[in-house]
Amino acid sequence: MSAKIRQARFHVEMHDAMERINDATHFDKRLYAEDIEASQAHCRMLVARNIISRQDGESIIKGLTQIREEIDKGDFTFDSKLEDVHMNIEHRLHELIGDAAGRLHTARSRNDQVATDFRLYIRRGIETIEMQLKELQNALVDAGEQHAATIMPGFTHLQPAQPVTFGHHLLAYVEMFERDRIRFANARENLNESPLGACALAGTSFPIDPEQTAADLGFRKPCGNSIDAVSDRDFALESLAAASISAMHLSRLAEEIVLWSSALVGFVRLSDAYSTGSSIMPQKRNPDAAELVRAKAGRIAGDFVSLLMVMKALPLSYSKDMQEDKEPLFDALESLGLGIAAMRGMVGDMTPDPEAMRAASAAGFSTATDLADWLVREHALPFREAHRIVGELVGIAEARGTGLEELSLQEFQKVDARIDESALKILSVEDSVASRTSPGGTSPGNVAAAIARWRKHLRA
Amino acid sequence: MSAKIRQARFHVEMHDAMERINDATHFDKRLYAEDIEASQAHCRMLVARNIISRQDGESIIKGLTQIREEIDKGDFTFDSKLEDVHMNIEHRLHELIGDAAGRLHTARSRNDQVATDFRLYIRRGIETIEMQLKELQNALVDAGEQHAATIMPGFTHLQPAQPVTFGHHLLAYVEMFERDRIRFANARENLNESPLGACALAGTSFPIDPEQTAADLGFRKPCGNSIDAVSDRDFALESLAAASISAMHLSRLAEEIVLWSSALVGFVRLSDAYSTGSSIMPQKRNPDAAELVRAKAGRIAGDFVSLLMVMKALPLSYSKDMQEDKEPLFDALESLGLGIAAMRGMVGDMTPDPEAMRAASAAGFSTATDLADWLVREHALPFREAHRIVGELVGIAEARGTGLEELSLQEFQKVDARIDESALKILSVEDSVASRTSPGGTSPGNVAAAIARWRKHLRA
Amino acid sequence: MSAKIRQARFHVEMHDAMERINDATHFDKRLYAEDIEASQAHCRMLVARNIISRQDGESIIKGLTQIREEIDKGDFTFDSKLEDVHMNIEHRLHELIGDAAGRLHTARSRNDQVATDFRLYIRRGIETIEMQLKELQNALVDAGEQHAATIMPGFTHLQPAQPVTFGHHLLAYVEMFERDRIRFANARENLNESPLGACALAGTSFPIDPEQTAADLGFRKPCGNSIDAVSDRDFALESLAAASISAMHLSRLAEEIVLWSSALVGFVRLSDAYSTGSSIMPQKRNPDAAELVRAKAGRIAGDFVSLLMVMKALPLSYSKDMQEDKEPLFDALESLGLGIAAMRGMVGDMTPDPEAMRAASAAGFSTATDLADWLVREHALPFREAHRIVGELVGIAEARGTGLEELSLQEFQKVDARIDESALKILSVEDSVASRTSPGGTSPGNVAAAIARWRKHLRA
Amino acid sequence: MSAKIRQARFHVEMHDAMERINDATHFDKRLYAEDIEASQAHCRMLVARNIISRQDGESIIKGLTQIREEIDKGDFTFDSKLEDVHMNIEHRLHELIGDAAGRLHTARSRNDQVATDFRLYIRRGIETIEMQLKELQNALVDAGEQHAATIMPGFTHLQPAQPVTFGHHLLAYVEMFERDRIRFANARENLNESPLGACALAGTSFPIDPEQTAADLGFRKPCGNSIDAVSDRDFALESLAAASISAMHLSRLAEEIVLWSSALVGFVRLSDAYSTGSSIMPQKRNPDAAELVRAKAGRIAGDFVSLLMVMKALPLSYSKDMQEDKEPLFDALESLGLGIAAMRGMVGDMTPDPEAMRAASAAGFSTATDLADWLVREHALPFREAHRIVGELVGIAEARGTGLEELSLQEFQKVDARIDESALKILSVEDSVASRTSPGGTSPGNVAAAIARWRKHLRA
Repeated sequence: MSAKIRQARFHVEMHDAMERINDATHFDKRLYAEDIEASQAHCRMLVARNIISRQDGESIIKGLTQIREEIDKGDFTFDSKLEDVHMNIEHRLHELIGDAAGRLHTARSRNDQVATDFRLYIRRGIETIEMQLKELQNALVDAGEQHAATIMPGFTHLQPAQPVTFGHHLLAYVEMFERDRIRFANARENLNESPLGACALAGTSFPIDPEQTAADLGFRKPCGNSIDAVSDRDFALESLAAASISAMHLSRLAEEIVLWSSALVGFVRLSDAYSTGSSIMPQKRNPDAAELVRAKAGRIAGDFVSLLMVMKALPLSYSKDMQEDKEPLFDALESLGLGIAAMRGMVGDMTPDPEAMRAASAAGFSTATDLADWLVREHALPFREAHRIVGELVGIAEARGTGLEELSLQEFQKVDARIDESALKILSVEDSVASRTSPGGTSPGNVAAAIARWRKHLRA
Repeated sequence: MSAKIRQARFHVEMHDAMERINDATHFDKRLYAEDIEASQAHCRMLVARNIISRQDGESIIKGLTQIREEIDKGDFTFDSKLEDVHMNIEHRLHELIGDAAGRLHTARSRNDQVATDFRLYIRRGIETIEMQLKELQNALVDAGEQHAATIMPGFTHLQPAQPVTFGHHLLAYVEMFERDRIRFANARENLNESPLGACALAGTSFPIDPEQTAADLGFRKPCGNSIDAVSDRDFALESLAAASISAMHLSRLAEEIVLWSSALVGFVRLSDAYSTGSSIMPQKRNPDAAELVRAKAGRIAGDFVSLLMVMKALPLSYSKDMQEDKEPLFDALESLGLGIAAMRGMVGDMTPDPEAMRAASAAGFSTATDLADWLVREHALPFREAHRIVGELVGIAEARGTGLEELSLQEFQKVDARIDESALKILSVEDSVASRTSPGGTSPGNVAAAIARWRKHLRA
Repeated sequence: MSAKIRQARFHVEMHDAMERINDATHFDKRLYAEDIEASQAHCRMLVARNIISRQDGESIIKGLTQIREEIDKGDFTFDSKLEDVHMNIEHRLHELIGDAAGRLHTARSRNDQVATDFRLYIRRGIETIEMQLKELQNALVDAGEQHAATIMPGFTHLQPAQPVTFGHHLLAYVEMFERDRIRFANARENLNESPLGACALAGTSFPIDPEQTAADLGFRKPCGNSIDAVSDRDFALESLAAASISAMHLSRLAEEIVLWSSALVGFVRLSDAYSTGSSIMPQKRNPDAAELVRAKAGRIAGDFVSLLMVMKALPLSYSKDMQEDKEPLFDALESLGLGIAAMRGMVGDMTPDPEAMRAASAAGFSTATDLADWLVREHALPFREAHRIVGELVGIAEARGTGLEELSLQEFQKVDARIDESALKILSVEDSVASRTSPGGTSPGNVAAAIARWRKHLRA
Repeated sequence: MSAKIRQARFHVEMHDAMERINDATHFDKRLYAEDIEASQAHCRMLVARNIISRQDGESIIKGLTQIREEIDKGDFTFDSKLEDVHMNIEHRLHELIGDAAGRLHTARSRNDQVATDFRLYIRRGIETIEMQLKELQNALVDAGEQHAATIMPGFTHLQPAQPVTFGHHLLAYVEMFERDRIRFANARENLNESPLGACALAGTSFPIDPEQTAADLGFRKPCGNSIDAVSDRDFALESLAAASISAMHLSRLAEEIVLWSSALVGFVRLSDAYSTGSSIMPQKRNPDAAELVRAKAGRIAGDFVSLLMVMKALPLSYSKDMQEDKEPLFDALESLGLGIAAMRGMVGDMTPDPEAMRAASAAGFSTATDLADWLVREHALPFREAHRIVGELVGIAEARGTGLEELSLQEFQKVDARIDESALKILSVEDSVASRTSPGGTSPGNVAAAIARWRKHLRA
C-alpha cells in the first residue's frame, strides 16, 4: 500500500521491521512486463464496456507503454516504500498522466491483478523450459546417433549387468525429458485461466467482460469462481512439482557424467569448456558443471517444499503468506533453466572413449544371462534351472579370476553337458547387444529406429 | 533372492542386519494381485509366441489363480526369508506345479516385473482417489446448493472483507478438487505404459510381444526404452506430487472447519459423528477429523520428499534404493483416501448457522468497497479517489465504534457532498452480494448457475 | 578459478552456460569480511612459522585491510569472471601488493578456506539470532507481566477448554524460544572447529600451526580430520534445522495473532504500525506481518530440505555440489531474523481486549473440569465417574443453550445429589484460574513467579 | 475416547470414515511399556500426596504390571474401537481392578500423558541409536587401524586429487558419527523434561508433586509451563533433525561402498553376507544393503518434513494434528537403526584391495601439489607461481599420455630450471602421504595417533 493510500486512515508510520518484512519490490519487480501487459488488457476491456472513457483509456495505455520502456532501459527507479511492483507502476502512471491513472484500478484488486501477472510470468517461464528441454533432447539424440552401436556396460546396482549401447543409454534420458515436457505442458494448460475479474474475492458489480481480458492475454477462459481465483496457487505448485522431477532427472545424468568422467572410470572426457581446475592441485579437471546440475535437484525440491508448506492450512481467500509464492518459483525456473543449459552443453561437449567402455562391458560376466537364455531357448530348460547352471559356471570362473568366456568347453560341459560350441559364440558383447531386438531393447537396429522416431517427433 | 537361488553361488548365510534391511515382503505383499495379474498376462504372451508350451502355460495360469485365492482368503503365509512378494509367489507356484513354474520367468526380470506391478497398483489407487474426489465434489455441490444465498463474510487475511455466499465459498473447493482430478488423470495417463519386456534393463533375445502384454493389462503401449523402463519412477513421483497438492487443498478446508466450528466463531456445528470429547473436559466437542485431515498434508508432503530424495542422483538403471518407492506411495494413497472420505463426511455432516454468518458479514465495514464503487459509477470518480473518501468515512465510524451504515447522511456528506440517500441503500450485505454478478462472482444467481454446471459436469 | 590461473592449462574459453552456473560471486561476496579475517589469521600463522617472510606477511595483512575498507565503502567492483569472492579478493591483493599476494595461498586450499569463512559467517549469524530471540523473549515477558492475571480461554483443538491467563499463554512461547536458543547455542558450539590446515583434503607438508589459526579466529580447536574438514557441512545443516524449528514456533504465534486480531475473534488489536490496508477495501486492517512470519516457516524448511538433499550421497571429500550450501543458509538466517524482529514488534504493539477474552473464556463450559475435580476431591469419586456426571450436566445445559453456571442447584442435584452450593462457586473463571497452582500451572501467582525467574535468567 | 466415555453425551455413533481416520491404536500401541511406566509413576505420586488411597494405588500398580506382562507375552488384544493405547490399557485396568481404575486419571489428562509416554519412548530410542553409532565408530576405527597406511586416492569432485590413507578416509566418518552422537545427546538432554502435571493444558488444583514423577521417570525436571508442555513437539522434531543428518552421513558412506565395490572401481569386495544376486543375471553381486542405507536418507528426511509441516501454524495448545507425530518418529528411529546396523556389518565385512587402491592413487598426477609445494618450500616461489609451473608440466605429461613422474629431468628443467633430482623423489604416493604430517593430515603416523585417541574416547 502506497504512502499515499495509507495516509487516509493510517496515522502511524509503519514500523521498520514491518516495512522490511513487507517489502516485495526487490523480487516482484521481475513481474513488471506482465503487470503492464495485464493492466493494458484490463484497460482495453474497461473502455470496451464503457466503464472508463476512451480518452482515459488511451492515456493509460500510452503511459503504461512508456513505463515499460523506462524499465526495459533501466531508467526506472523502484521505490521499496511503495511496497511492490504494482504500486510502483501505478505511482509512476499517476506522475505521467495524472488522475486518470486512478481509474485503472476500477473493477480490479491487487488480488486478481497479482494472480494474473504471476500466471503470465510462469506461462512464459514454462514455455522457455519446454523449449530448452527439447534442445537437450536433440543434443541427446545427436549423441545417441553417433553412438548407436557403441557398446558400454549396462548397470544395475552400479554393477555391470549386461552390455548395452551408449546410444540406447542416452535415449533413456530422452524419454525422461519427454515426460518432463508433457508434465510442463499439462501444468501450462492447467494454469491457463484468467483470474481477472475476481477482484478482491467476490467479483464486482461493474459490467466487466472477463472473457475479453482472458482472450486478450491468451488465457483459455476466465477462472470459474472468484474466491478460488484469488486463493489458488496450484499453478505455481504444479510447476514446481514438474521442475522438481525434471531436476531429479538432470541429477541422474549429472551423476553419471561425474562417474564417467572420473579418472577411475574414464568413459568420457569433458573439454576445458566444462571443466575447472583446482586452486591447489594443478592437475585437476573437475566436472563442476555436472556437480552443480546435480545439486540443483536439492535446491528445486526445497522450493517446492517451501511453497507447499506456505499454502498448507491457509483459510480462503487471499492471505499475505501467499506473497511467498514468487521467490521459490523464480528460483526454480532459473535454476532449472541453468541446469538444462549446462547439461545440453555437456552432452554436446563430452567425448566418449569407446574402447574403455567396451572393455568394461566385457568384464564381470556380463553375458551370463545370454548363456542362460540360450539354455532355455535351445534346450527348453526352465529359466530358473538355466539360471542355476550359469550361476555355477560363474562361480568357477570367479574363483579362478577369469571371465566366463575363458573357461574351456570341457569345463562348461562338466557343469552341463548340453552346452556346446554354438553356445560359446554368444558370449561376446557384440552378439549379446545385437540379439536384444525386442521392442525397446538395446540392439543397434532398435536404437537407430528410435533415433529416427525421435527426430520426427522433435521436429513436429 | 530366494534361498534356493542363492545356493548356487552364495556360500555364506546372509547377515541378520542385511536380511532385516533387505526384507520387502512385509510391505510389498500388497502388490500380490497385480503381480499375479501381470504374470498371467506375461504367461499368455509366452504361450502365444511359442516361447513356452501351451501346457506349461495352462499350469502356470491355474497355479497363479489358486495362489491369488489363497492370499485373498488369508490362507497364504508370506515368508520374509523369500525377500519379496514376487519370490513368495514364485516359490509357492513351484510347490503347486513343479518345474513349469521356472518357465514363467523366461524373458522377464524382477526389474520389469516390479515396475509393472507397481504401475498397475498405482493406476488402481489413482482411480479410487479420482472417484472419491468426485464424491467429495458432489457433497460440496449439495451443500453449496442449500446455501447458494446464505450470506457469510468473505475473508482476506482472515479479516472480513466483503460479504459472499456460503455456496460460493464451497464451490471454490469444487474448483480445487476438479484440478486435483485433472492432475491425477494426467498422472494416470502418463504412467500407463508397460515396462514388461524391458527385462533386467536391455530387452531380450526371446521373440516376445510387448504390445500384447501391454494391451492385456490395459496399458496404452509398451515403454519405449528398456533402460528407462526399469529406471523410471516418475509415475510414483507424479502421483505423490498430485497427492501432495490435493492434501494441501483438504488442509485448507479442514482449517476452515476447525475455525468455523470453534466456539469462538460458531459458523458451523459438527454432529457427534464427527466430534470427539475430552478425557478430562466433559464439555469439549473437538473437530478431530478436521484436524487429522489437516495434518495429512504434512504426512503426504513428507512422502513426496522421501521418494524424490531417494531418486536424486541415482545412476541408471535399477538400483536397490528404488525399493523405497513403495511405502511412501502406499502411505500417501491411503492417507489421502482417508482424508477425502473424512472430509466428505464432514461436508455432509456440518450444520451452518446462517444467522451467525450473516451477523459476522455485516460487521467490519464489509460493504465499504460497494460505496467506493458507487462513487466511481455514479460520479465518475477515479477509483483511487473514491477509495480515499471511503477510507476517511471508515476512520470516522471506527473512531466512534459503529458501523458505516450507522453514520448519518450529513456525516457522509461532510466528507463528500456527492453521497446521497441512494448510496446508503447499497450498504446492506444482501445488496452487496446480489450486485456481484460478474462472471465467477458471488451473487446467488451466479452460484445457482454454477451448481447446475457442476451437476452436469460431475454426472458426465 | 581465475582467468589467470586457467591460462596455464585450459586452452578453451569456458562455455557461457558453464560460466553462468559456475558463478558464485553474486552470492558469496557476503563472505568478504570473514574471508579477509581468515586470510589475515592464516597469514599471521605463516609468518609465525617462518613459512613466509615477515615483510610479505605485513604487505598481505595491510593489503587485505585496504580491500576490506574498499568493500565496506562500496568502492570495490566484484567481477563474476573471477568466479567467487576468494578469487576477487586475491586478484585485488595482487594488484595492490604484487607477487607477495601469491604467497598467501601457501598451505591452504579453497576447500579449507571456504569452509572456514562459512563457519565464521554462520557463527556470527547465529549469535545475532540468539540475541534477537532473547529480545523477543523479553518482549513476551513484558507483555506477560502486564497480563499475568488477564483471563483468556485456553484452547485445545481450537475449542475453549479451560480458562488460562494471557500471561501464561505468552510464557509458553518464552519456553519455545528458550529451547531455540539452546539449539542454536549447541549448533554454534558444534560448528566451532577450524578447518584451516586441511588444505585440499589431505593436510600439508608445511609446518603449519592450526592451533594458532583456530585460536586467532575464536575456534575451539582445529578439525580433527582433514578429509572431514573439507567434506562436512553439518554446521550449516544443524543451523538450518534449528532455524526450521524456530520458524515453526514463530508460525504458531503468528497464526494466533492472525486469529486473535481477526474481527471474528477480537482478542487483540494491532496498531497501524503492524497493519496494512487494502487496495480495494478501505476498511481493512490486515495483519500482514503476522502472515508473512507464518509463511517464513515454509521458506526456511525448504532451505533445510534443499541442503540436506544436496548433501545426500555425496562421496568424500569436497564436491562442487557443496557450493549450493550458501544461499539456503543466507536465506534462512535472513528470513528468520526478519521474522523474529517483526514478531517482537507485534508482541510489543498488540493491545489485548481483556473483556473480550474473559467473555470468551466463560463460554463453552470451560470450568466443567473444575466441577469434576471438585467431585473427586470432595467426594472421592473416581475421576472417570465424575467426568461422566459432569458430561451429563453439560448435555442438559447445552440442550437448553445456556452455560453450566446457569443451571439451578436443583438441576445439578438431580444429576448428582452430592453437588452443593460450594461446588457452584468454583464455576467462575477467576476461581478456576486461581486454583491452578500446581507447578507450571496457570494461576496468576505462578505466572508472576515465572516472570521473575525469566527476568533473572534473561539478564544473565 | 472410549465408547464408554462417549456414551454420557454423544448420542450418534461415530461415522466410519471418522473412526478410521481417528484410530491410533494400530501404531501407538508401541508406547505400551512407556504408558504403563508413566502411569505407575503418576500413581505413586498420587498416593504420596494422599490424592488417592494407598490401597487403590496398590491395585493400580499391580493391575498395570499384569497388563504389561500380558502385552509382553502377546496375550493382549488391542481394540481399535478404544481409539488408542491409553484407553486400551485403562479399559483393561477397569476389567482387572474395577472402579479404582477410574482414579488413575486424577490430575492427569491424555494430553500430558501422551507427551510423557512419547518422550520416554524417544529417549530410549535415542539411547539405542547412540549405542549403535558408537558400535559403528568402533567398527570404523578397527578397519581404519588395519589400513592406517593403506594408500588410496583422495578425491575431490570424484577426481583423484591427492593420495591419502584408507584409514584416514574411514576416520572422517568417525568424526561425522561423533557429531551425530553429540546431536542426539543434545536432543536427549533437551527432551528430558516431564510434562506430567500439565494436565489438559492449565495445570491442576490437586496438590500434585511433578518433581516426584519427573525424578521417578528419570527426567531432569518438570516442564516449566503447562501450556507449552502439551503443545510442544520439539523433542520429536529435534530427534528427527538429528536422524536426518545422521542418515545423510550414512548415505555418503553407502554411496562410497557402492562405488568402491563396483566392478568398475574394485577397491573393496563385499562378502556374500552383504551381497545379493539377480533374478536374471547369475553373475551379479549387488551391494543391496549399501543401496538401501543410501535410500534411508530420503525416507528419514521425509519424516522430518512431515512432522515439521504438521506443526506449522498450529495454535496452542494441543491439537489432534499432533497425533501425526508418532509414525514419522517410529519410522525414522527404526530406519536409522537398520541403516546403522547394516553399515556396521558392511564396514566389518568389506575387504579392500590395497593394490587396486594404490594403483588408482598413483594415476592422475595426484602428487602434482607436492611438487608445487616443493617449489614454494625450496625456492621460495609464491604458491601461485609454483602452481602455474606445475600446471604447465601436467599439460605436457597429459598431452603425451604419461604420468608426471615419467617426464625426464630435462623436461622438468625446460619448464623450470630450479627443479632437480630431489624434487622428483617426492612424486611417489608413499612420500606424499608420509609428508602430510600437519595436525589432522593423512600421514600414517597421524592416523595411528588418531586411532589411539578414538579408542580411548570410545571406551570412555
